[in-house]
Amino acid sequence: MTASVLVLNSGSSSIKFGLFDIAAAEPALVCKGLLDEHEAKPRLVVRSPEGGDLFETRREASDADSGHLFADVLDFIEERFADHRLRAVGHRIVHGGPDYSGPVELTDDVYAKLDALTPLAPLHQPRCLEPVRTIRAIKPDLAQIACFDTAFHHSMAAPASRFALPRRYEERGIRRYGFHGLSFEYVAGRLAKIAPQLVAKRTVIAHLGNGASLCALRDGRSVDTTMGLTPLDGLVMGTRSGTIDPGVLLYLQQHENMSVGDVQHLLYHESGLLGVSGISADMRVLLASREAAAREAVDLFVFRTVQEIAVMAASLGGLDCLVFTGGIGEHAKEIRAAIGEQLGWLGVHIDAGANDAARDRISGGGSTVNVFVIPTNEELTIARHCAAVLRAK
Amino acid sequence: MTASVLVLNSGSSSIKFGLFDIAAAEPALVCKGLLDEHEAKPRLVVRSPEGGDLFETRREASDADSGHLFADVLDFIEERFADHRLRAVGHRIVHGGPDYSGPVELTDDVYAKLDALTPLAPLHQPRCLEPVRTIRAIKPDLAQIACFDTAFHHSMAAPASRFALPRRYEERGIRRYGFHGLSFEYVAGRLAKIAPQLVAKRTVIAHLGNGASLCALRDGRSVDTTMGLTPLDGLVMGTRSGTIDPGVLLYLQQHENMSVGDVQHLLYHESGLLGVSGISADMRVLLASREAAAREAVDLFVFRTVQEIAVMAASLGGLDCLVFTGGIGEHAKEIRAAIGEQLGWLGVHIDAGANDAARDRISGGGSTVNVFVIPTNEELTIARHCAAVLRAK
Repeated sequence: MTASVLVLNSGSSSIKFGLFDIAAAEPALVCKGLLDEHEAKPRLVVRSPEGGDLFETRREASDADSGHLFADVLDFIEERFADHRLRAVGHRIVHGGPDYSGPVELTDDVYAKLDALTPLAPLHQPRCLEPVRTIRAIKPDLAQIACFDTAFHHSMAAPASRFALPRRYEERGIRRYGFHGLSFEYVAGRLAKIAPQLVAKRTVIAHLGNGASLCALRDGRSVDTTMGLTPLDGLVMGTRSGTIDPGVLLYLQQHENMSVGDVQHLLYHESGLLGVSGISADMRVLLASREAAAREAVDLFVFRTVQEIAVMAASLGGLDCLVFTGGIGEHAKEIRAAIGEQLGWLGVHIDAGANDAARDRISGGGSTVNVFVIPTNEELTIARHCAAVLRAK
Repeated sequence: MTASVLVLNSGSSSIKFGLFDIAAAEPALVCKGLLDEHEAKPRLVVRSPEGGDLFETRREASDADSGHLFADVLDFIEERFADHRLRAVGHRIVHGGPDYSGPVELTDDVYAKLDALTPLAPLHQPRCLEPVRTIRAIKPDLAQIACFDTAFHHSMAAPASRFALPRRYEERGIRRYGFHGLSFEYVAGRLAKIAPQLVAKRTVIAHLGNGASLCALRDGRSVDTTMGLTPLDGLVMGTRSGTIDPGVLLYLQQHENMSVGDVQHLLYHESGLLGVSGISADMRVLLASREAAAREAVDLFVFRTVQEIAVMAASLGGLDCLVFTGGIGEHAKEIRAAIGEQLGWLGVHIDAGANDAARDRISGGGSTVNVFVIPTNEELTIARHCAAVLRAK
């Protein structure tokens, strides 16, 4: 009998999961998969660590809300891995607010606190918390553990954490938190293995995916990041505007007859790459397109990313190391090349051959900045956190 | 008989003015002064170019709105400078919108167009346009000329001018315009005289005053700036927040029970240095204070300015020249020193002695970036524009 944890990573359209054996010091992936409740027939797919099909099932649409897919996952695990004792379910939770600087067991109290943080991430927080409730209903005695996207940035201090607002707002929790922490934590750990001599140096990790943010690290700790109170801030994203003149929000409401809800929908769902291109939120589609608007959306994405890398360099007092991760960061060599080209003034020089091959290190010989591509693994970070929480119980 | 123009620069609490002789190629200041309508007894003060008192008068509060102070100025000029023919009144107008890339005579048509731009600068535009109406009522035949804070940035192109919004918004004029153009234009002209070899280089002008913004220049033209659609964006200012996570505005309305008007007032009038310090919007007061909150407000101002200088450097592909201007930029040596210190990684080194003396050039021998202090003169820029418009008539 061995011990395992099930890790859930709830995204906008589906839930990724992974089953990890936690008997050894480092969790080992046993199987992974996808719960997709948004298709006409909600679908569960389970694959081996190498990607081979293990199991697939479909439900009727009416079964989605009632958590049948979650029951199916738990049943599958119990049956297929009878020698595993499932010790906990680990969740990626977007917002931990001011209180949580590390993983925590999801008691009713903790759940209520996290639910109360929904206003800080109105679209993401409910999506993360729903599976907690569903699984609680199916297996009330199974431990559940929250791992936060904000926790890694608890090392960030003023002025980086501060908005230029009256202090009473800061006292009520309106400060810069930052997100993607589970990804930054994983990549920082990998970087420390690949290039330990760089840990003490000035590093920027660029998590570029459908959501995107940068983290400035010194000694492996976050000192600044591009997202703020909410995951709307910073870089241009698939459908999110990122940073935008606050006067635009006022203008849209006062003179374009939009409600605050309309503006929220516009900035979260209709903007970014999708809004500028009018074609797609998917970087692959835009890179393959010959439309001028697609090119312009990509240009704006690169331009804003370069500007924000400069902001992170300002927070660090320079730049020694730049790491690309996330869907775009790992797979879009054109984007890495364009960013590298526009950062020549900071000493960045990307080697074209290494970049095409997406090798660990893609900087050229003359580059004063070490540039890497490191695939992220949020699920493994969550599994590690769960193992640690269970060990401490 | 010589020709002159009266220049009005409408600020938040008072209107500065200058009378310029425009007979020669370069306008010459004849007298200057202040119309202060917000005191208990509205006041007009006129001084010589050197600052000596020439004239002062006070009115009853009830006279303010009816434009008596403007009539007083015009009467004073007519009487005291009987050998001058007043050819025009030149106005600093904050927003020129997408159409105006240079000065323009204020016909009824133009006035209506500028009035329609009020939503883009809700607090500043009416303040600039009111004197136009007042003077029209007193002297209907006197030419009036609009000089725009946005015009200098018309050279700015996408991606710098673009928000990551759906295109239909850009087509309706929701783009990045930038402000403080009359100041940037003046300073760029002075720099070209002081250091002509730097014109082709990568320059950032930091206009740091109660309002504050940066301009990135190449070949003397604006390629990027920190303000956007409205003067709320970018740096931390006296009472303005500058750039802030757009999610904060949504949050305040959805969960702090604030109306869009409340949020506008908060971000324009209660934030920035005043909000963070809780003490004052005035940098001099904060620098003299021993309160921790005053220090923290100054720290945030410096931190954000340094970050945004890095953003401008990214738009330029590096930095060769940095110029300080505006009330804080010209007079707060502590701020210049702190900014310089945090920009060492970009090759900035400020010489302490030169900085204390606020000499033209304040960079030290080892600095790869040329750093200057150049006092701005928006009024002279307006006088030049007026002279050019009158010559072309």
